[in-house]
Amino acid sequence: MIAFLTDWSLKSYYVGVAKAVMKKINPSVDVVDITHDIKPFDVRMAAHVLLRASFDFPENTVFVAVVDYGVGTNRKAICVKTKNNHFYVGPDNGIFTYVAQHYGVKQIRELDNKSFHYGSSYTFHGRDIFAAVAGYLSKGIPFEQIGSVLPNYIVLPTKNAQLGSDFMIGEVVYFDGFGNVETNIPACFVEKLQWEMDDVILLNERYELIYVKAYGDVEKGKGLVHVDSSGFIEISVNQGSAANVFKFHEGELVKLRRKKP
Amino acid sequence: MIAFLTDWSLKSYYVGVAKAVMKKINPSVDVVDITHDIKPFDVRMAAHVLLRASFDFPENTVFVAVVDYGVGTNRKAICVKTKNNHFYVGPDNGIFTYVAQHYGVKQIRELDNKSFHYGSSYTFHGRDIFAAVAGYLSKGIPFEQIGSVLPNYIVLPTKNAQLGSDFMIGEVVYFDGFGNVETNIPACFVEKLQWEMDDVILLNERYELIYVKAYGDVEKGKGLVHVDSSGFIEISVNQGSAANVFKFHEGELVKLRRKKP
Amino acid sequence: MIAFLTDWSLKSYYVGVAKAVMKKINPSVDVVDITHDIKPFDVRMAAHVLLRASFDFPENTVFVAVVDYGVGTNRKAICVKTKNNHFYVGPDNGIFTYVAQHYGVKQIRELDNKSFHYGSSYTFHGRDIFAAVAGYLSKGIPFEQIGSVLPNYIVLPTKNAQLGSDFMIGEVVYFDGFGNVETNIPACFVEKLQWEMDDVILLNERYELIYVKAYGDVEKGKGLVHVDSSGFIEISVNQGSAANVFKFHEGELVKLRRKKP
Repeated sequence: MIAFLTDWSLKSYYVGVAKAVMKKINPSVDVVDITHDIKPFDVRMAAHVLLRASFDFPENTVFVAVVDYGVGTNRKAICVKTKNNHFYVGPDNGIFTYVAQHYGVKQIRELDNKSFHYGSSYTFHGRDIFAAVAGYLSKGIPFEQIGSVLPNYIVLPTKNAQLGSDFMIGEVVYFDGFGNVETNIPACFVEKLQWEMDDVILLNERYELIYVKAYGDVEKGKGLVHVDSSGFIEISVNQGSAANVFKFHEGELVKLRRKKP
Repeated sequence: MIAFLTDWSLKSYYVGVAKAVMKKINPSVDVVDITHDIKPFDVRMAAHVLLRASFDFPENTVFVAVVDYGVGTNRKAICVKTKNNHFYVGPDNGIFTYVAQHYGVKQIRELDNKSFHYGSSYTFHGRDIFAAVAGYLSKGIPFEQIGSVLPNYIVLPTKNAQLGSDFMIGEVVYFDGFGNVETNIPACFVEKLQWEMDDVILLNERYELIYVKAYGDVEKGKGLVHVDSSGFIEISVNQGSAANVFKFHEGELVKLRRKKP
Repeated sequence: MIAFLTDWSLKSYYVGVAKAVMKKINPSVDVVDITHDIKPFDVRMAAHVLLRASFDFPENTVFVAVVDYGVGTNRKAICVKTKNNHFYVGPDNGIFTYVAQHYGVKQIRELDNKSFHYGSSYTFHGRDIFAAVAGYLSKGIPFEQIGSVLPNYIVLPTKNAQLGSDFMIGEVVYFDGFGNVETNIPACFVEKLQWEMDDVILLNERYELIYVKAYGDVEKGKGLVHVDSSGFIEISVNQGSAANVFKFHEGELVKLRRKKP
């Protein structure tokens, strides 16, 4: 299976022709779109979404992840094989930071074997290199043949979530289609601070949220905080958009603290 | 075949991971997207779109329809098997009202057999229950095994279309991507009122539309009313957006009356 | 393989049910979406996008291209078989102008054999004729059976790119999802005017662009001109939107001239 994530949007034909190349090389391959609506050029967002999506894909999935404003310059084209036997194909610009940290790296290869490329444009490696190599990998071409070993890959500067004595701080990773605010704060922080259901949580010392299990556990329009389905803390508004209500920006920090009873 | 409809949008990775789960369970399944752009939380719109789309899918199609703000609360997870052998998987919140009424219900089951679930999040039953059960059903797991029989399901309050002596009244069900206005008025009302091609039809006693067969039967920019490809009355503007021109709101009532010659 | 392009958007269920019809007829067919976000009713844009996308699809691909405001009127439904053995199925309204000119026409047939239709709506030939015939063609039904031979097809009035003594003029064909400006100026014009890397190019005698190979060859936010991955001249802004910066309209003409050193 190939899982496919880009910032190309579906407006143009780029996603379609990349799939055509994958299927020319491996006609029986299944291509599953993760999303093509990553904010243009936003490698950080892509890296976070890729990690969250990766949890549900099986072993041997080939991921193609392309946010690639450096295409045609000297940035490398790579494939990261992780210890859980996922293959991550794309530009070496930090997009694989979180999956590599999460699963551990088995080996990295530069995609310098041109016999597995499809063409040689300067501006569309998504089609000409990444889609093509993914097609071959999905067909069973050995990882060892796609290019030479690389010792390391580019790592994004990251703002790790922090646990204080009675608070947690994390990054607004991105908003989903509902306006839910995804953070990089891991679920285990909640246990460490011993939050309990229905506790009142202060967001940035200003807004009151209720800590619950499900959106419907608060009234329509009310703010809530909960552990989302990928194991991170999510800030939401029941049947509303937390992004709009709390005026967040993607990338900023948020602080969550339980209000004294 | 699995047919898939949600209000998740394609911005996030939710649709992608739900498909990953379906394909982990049944690698050869074909998943066809109906749409993922249902207005967030709009069960009414989803129920109407689901019915219209269902007409063209074959017997044994498994439909996954998820607009689910009640996820994680006590709302049930169900599968409705209809008399035409369609399987409708999703939350019990009214989303299956129109398909159940149209095709008739053979049996309803609650998805309480956890051996066919994939995980147990509180907020993503779309992946953990609905996608998983659909994967198993598409593989041929007997309907009887997915859970216990339910006597009934939740029905949306509906505004049925009404036929008057010389007029018809119906609901603005939703707008399509062109701004065509879809109503719930069935095509047979036209015969009952004996409209003829090129009749002038008053919309809400105010705007003049022409009753025609095809968009191009009126000049560019002119309003028209016709029987759409799903068997309902549609209000359109040739090469324009009726939603914008006539300032409709989804859910409101419209009246159509033939103008006296 | 079926490649699928429309102006229907993904908001409604139209794309989904057209695919359902294709797969009812040929359950094993692979359908690849080119895009469904062609500007509504914009046959010109569709014709350009179709050509660019077609380059990467294999022989025997069946293309379904539907921008069809004339549906239900006397416009014909056709299939153009090109000399490279592509099949182009859709309305006879000019949408196949550029693929027919580029590949050459082997034969054109009108889709008048109703045994390969699925239904007979007046407003959804995309589903009832084009999707259905494409399903049969993808299954191997001989081209000769789908209908009677047509001597010609409708050709769009086109503004061909022009080469002057020291300038080139072309059409703004459309914007991609990044706001890159796609033109109809072929790459060979650059050689004819002997542009060299890093030359300064005047856009409409007003804006300065740099002629480069890749987006990243200029600073972030700077304008550039380059040969895109389909063999045409593209005007871009590194990590920005050229459509917004230069305030283009789709369809207008642009002039590019090398600045005297």
